[in-house]
Amino acid sequence: MLRTNTCGELRLSDVNKQTTLAGWVQTVRKFGSITFVDLRDRYGITQLLFSENLNEQLDANPLGREFVLQVTGTVNERSNKNSNIPTGEIEITVTDFTILNKSITPPFTIQDDTDGGDDLRMKYRFLDLRRQAVKKNLELRYAVGRSTRNYLHEKDFMDIETPFLIKSTPEGARDFVVPSRMNPGQFYALPQSPQTFKQLLMVSGYDRYYQIVKCFRDEDLRADRQPEFTQIDCEMCFVEQEDILQMFEGLIKRIFKDVKNIDYTAQVERMTWENAMWNYGNDKPDIRYEMKLCNLKYPSHTFPTQKDISSLISGVDFKVFDEAETVIAIAAPGCSDYTRKQTDELTEWVKRPQIGMKGLVYIKCNADGTFKSSVDKFYNEEKLTAIASSVNAKPGDLIFILAGAEERTRKATSELRLYLGQQLGLRKTDEFKLLWVLDFPLFEYAEEDNRWVARHHPFTSPKPSDIETMIQHNPAIENAAEYLKHPYANIKANAYDMVLNGNEIGGGSIRIYQKELQQKMFAALGMNEAEQQHKFGFLLGAFEYGAPPHGGVAFGFDRLCSILGGSESIRDFIAFPKNNSGRDVMIDAPSSIDEKQFEELQIKLNLKQ
Amino acid sequence: MLRTNTCGELRLSDVNKQTTLAGWVQTVRKFGSITFVDLRDRYGITQLLFSENLNEQLDANPLGREFVLQVTGTVNERSNKNSNIPTGEIEITVTDFTILNKSITPPFTIQDDTDGGDDLRMKYRFLDLRRQAVKKNLELRYAVGRSTRNYLHEKDFMDIETPFLIKSTPEGARDFVVPSRMNPGQFYALPQSPQTFKQLLMVSGYDRYYQIVKCFRDEDLRADRQPEFTQIDCEMCFVEQEDILQMFEGLIKRIFKDVKNIDYTAQVERMTWENAMWNYGNDKPDIRYEMKLCNLKYPSHTFPTQKDISSLISGVDFKVFDEAETVIAIAAPGCSDYTRKQTDELTEWVKRPQIGMKGLVYIKCNADGTFKSSVDKFYNEEKLTAIASSVNAKPGDLIFILAGAEERTRKATSELRLYLGQQLGLRKTDEFKLLWVLDFPLFEYAEEDNRWVARHHPFTSPKPSDIETMIQHNPAIENAAEYLKHPYANIKANAYDMVLNGNEIGGGSIRIYQKELQQKMFAALGMNEAEQQHKFGFLLGAFEYGAPPHGGVAFGFDRLCSILGGSESIRDFIAFPKNNSGRDVMIDAPSSIDEKQFEELQIKLNLKQ
Repeated sequence: MLRTNTCGELRLSDVNKQTTLAGWVQTVRKFGSITFVDLRDRYGITQLLFSENLNEQLDANPLGREFVLQVTGTVNERSNKNSNIPTGEIEITVTDFTILNKSITPPFTIQDDTDGGDDLRMKYRFLDLRRQAVKKNLELRYAVGRSTRNYLHEKDFMDIETPFLIKSTPEGARDFVVPSRMNPGQFYALPQSPQTFKQLLMVSGYDRYYQIVKCFRDEDLRADRQPEFTQIDCEMCFVEQEDILQMFEGLIKRIFKDVKNIDYTAQVERMTWENAMWNYGNDKPDIRYEMKLCNLKYPSHTFPTQKDISSLISGVDFKVFDEAETVIAIAAPGCSDYTRKQTDELTEWVKRPQIGMKGLVYIKCNADGTFKSSVDKFYNEEKLTAIASSVNAKPGDLIFILAGAEERTRKATSELRLYLGQQLGLRKTDEFKLLWVLDFPLFEYAEEDNRWVARHHPFTSPKPSDIETMIQHNPAIENAAEYLKHPYANIKANAYDMVLNGNEIGGGSIRIYQKELQQKMFAALGMNEAEQQHKFGFLLGAFEYGAPPHGGVAFGFDRLCSILGGSESIRDFIAFPKNNSGRDVMIDAPSSIDEKQFEELQIKLNLKQ
Repeated sequence: MLRTNTCGELRLSDVNKQTTLAGWVQTVRKFGSITFVDLRDRYGITQLLFSENLNEQLDANPLGREFVLQVTGTVNERSNKNSNIPTGEIEITVTDFTILNKSITPPFTIQDDTDGGDDLRMKYRFLDLRRQAVKKNLELRYAVGRSTRNYLHEKDFMDIETPFLIKSTPEGARDFVVPSRMNPGQFYALPQSPQTFKQLLMVSGYDRYYQIVKCFRDEDLRADRQPEFTQIDCEMCFVEQEDILQMFEGLIKRIFKDVKNIDYTAQVERMTWENAMWNYGNDKPDIRYEMKLCNLKYPSHTFPTQKDISSLISGVDFKVFDEAETVIAIAAPGCSDYTRKQTDELTEWVKRPQIGMKGLVYIKCNADGTFKSSVDKFYNEEKLTAIASSVNAKPGDLIFILAGAEERTRKATSELRLYLGQQLGLRKTDEFKLLWVLDFPLFEYAEEDNRWVARHHPFTSPKPSDIETMIQHNPAIENAAEYLKHPYANIKANAYDMVLNGNEIGGGSIRIYQKELQQKMFAALGMNEAEQQHKFGFLLGAFEYGAPPHGGVAFGFDRLCSILGGSESIRDFIAFPKNNSGRDVMIDAPSSIDEKQFEELQIKLNLKQ
């Protein structure tokens, strides 16, 4: 070893020891003929003292930032102690040093609070990775992975690798494909997930499988998506939904303990998809704070079992509400003293194209019990009191009301809730609230094709009580306008999402394991028998040889790490991420390939003009 | 859970307990109105007893092999105990049963000793995986992975994921490439290994990195190669060769202990590449047994420092030896009584095209000290005695001598040594002998291009004492005929291979970390500056910002598992392997893709007629 100790290791108890350290020059401070150097490695920073006797040698071999240095010397107590770092009580009096490698001036300094901007960081990622801020993210990622493996090992799960060169079955997202030289004209696909393989492992009887595995989706990259990403992928057999929920909330609680030293002893909350949409306008609600939606009006088919309170706002000839499909209110706690400027800003906020509303109604619930609203001429005190009561507003709160088309309005209210939560400091990065969202619809309606699409994926089972409905009925939709009356519209999935602080961190389902039901599902998605055989013949075949009941879950590893690390960006938790064009700007990939490679693969470019 | 216990769990101590099991029907044996069923799951087999009262119900719902069954009943002591299985003292008296799924007749029975042949096994891999023989291989694989992770964790290594969509830099093997839809005309490559990324992590200061990671090579598949395979990939900085050797022989010893309960306390042997070639004709010798090669004659340049004993065989006008470039002998212990038929068979064996020799000379060292050889008319007793002494043959041994061109003869003798070792039972699957092979040549000579190629890879450092030689001399070879006189021919690499029982299980090197030396290496391999920049500009760039001395190793995970499992085939240790045409016959991949995919990727086929 080129060192006897690391730069994070030596303490007062080591004083007088001989030591050899190696690392990077963080800073050089020269005071006359004495030089102090902060030497940095993965483990910390140690101060070096070059005394007068080395001055000449240092002048001949000047040190610069990021030089790689090996020093030998003695551990001494510092006169000027630094209590901010664990090695701050000692320094090394250098007797000998070797410059192992030099560095030209880096494009940004290696410090926590300067990073040179995103473009430079990505181009010089190997320097960015030296920053403590990035290093602790990768350390956290490693700790989450380690904790996951330990927990799953203790629970009898086996890590089994599934193949990366598989078959293209474009269903949801686009596949990345790989031309096969040995099978000209044919292509492999990179897996969007190991879904069918993990199901085959269940058919094979490996009853607890997991993998921390790369997955690939060729999608246009919205902010914070990556073409390659990592999943914690798990599957179990002989289980029901309840078993999966308990097993995997256990996993997340274990990760909290191991990685954040948080005892998450509380019961993990559960909510139906319908209640999530009704109360939060969102299938991944942030339940760190209340501010529930109050549905003053909604189309009759969306929540047929909920109580209709539209009489509260009707009958006063307020056209905005009367003509709207949906009217939803929320109460912002303690905001009744918002100024006109503040409510105007919020009105502008909801009118932005990303939100797309026409306006914002407010009702101030003054501390003295009176109201002041933008709709005073329509609603009297009594009406306002009733509305405030419905939305659970207390004196001092500020009620906002949005009105418009159902989907947009619900989404907008949810966005407004999150925005206000952020503004009001209700979304604390050090508070963690887990939630299971359950009972999703199995199907969504695809208007363009007048058919069903799988909300989760085609392998998700309906609720046991809905299986008969699914098998007995023809999935074809005769009358597009009345698709909601089709029996398939009400089938619920045996699926579940885990939500952490308003982010979906994982999801899964109990799978279909009966060949007939799987065929019915494929047919419902518009796949004829030939297509079913071509794409999923192996799975249908496997289901003929004793497939057990099974189900599983997959967690987004990058996202989970970023939330645990208190960050919005998954990129900071990936060693070598790609930019929004799917490029690695450091290595400059993708790039052109040689003519010889085209020839061998028997493909050519066919670029659009 | 659909069960309260597994099929491998219940014992005599559980008698009278109520239990629910779920699993697969292994066998059904009906004795009148009583039926015995062996129920199998991942954990074992438990016998079920269906008494008379269930007979009618069973007749109405007959059980077949591989049916998925759930039963509830009571644990009872068996009258007819089976001491071969851990559950053999009990059986479950069934009170209630549910057929969870049926199975059609499988194409082969799920037993250890029948597998239906390779084609059926691969097509029905999901059934093959149910066989105990395959399951224990995957369990061993998981155990090796787990042991690896635990050891490396304790040694402060961090698992850091490197990208799969990288840049094509075809050097050694062919890359698999992935067309980029977002960057039309450009391609990603799948990594042949994370080599450059792990080096960048060292530049970033993550001084102990590891990953168990998939790698990809588009090669024509010889037996037992896979287009995707798994590596244990490791890198360290501030180390010298000795540190790496100790760290990673520690890893393999730990795996022996954790997985095979073997205390490998012996020192791991070390051998130079030259000695391996001289003594075994092979750079990955199987040192479980002796039978060293005796070099009776060899070209003067191949082993310039070794002692020439060619006078032993010269001067008797035996043309076969006189005209041969190389003559090598080995002694097969205790084989002096081989019959003519046996020596003839061995002669045929070396004449096969795969070995390619013209014939085989033998000398029987009779137990009484006399000799009987196929070259008696050339060599007298005295000469034969001298030869026998050189090859360390004792009375009772049988000496074989091969003669011909150097490379072919050396390889053939090595093959013969391995073949005889196998025949004589010297290569025991339960004996494990590790070996480090060191001091490889840095370069090989490529005749077609009259230039150097990297024997390991272009990032391997020369021995420190050879760095000056490399930098000072022009790599160009003026006189092709005398390439051996070029100073580069004698440069040794700071590289090492780990060999287990005659298989290379891992290899690595101390890397180049100086920009100038790396450029010189690229130039030596015939890469001009523009090419260097295009392909490896990011690495050369990184070396300018304080690259530390570093080195690493990669182990072939599939191969390591197969050797530990006592098998010749890596396929048996991969859940879903591909065949020799790179096909997954179960899912039928690769396959054609849709016209829409071609359009989006802006490529088309260009099939050769």
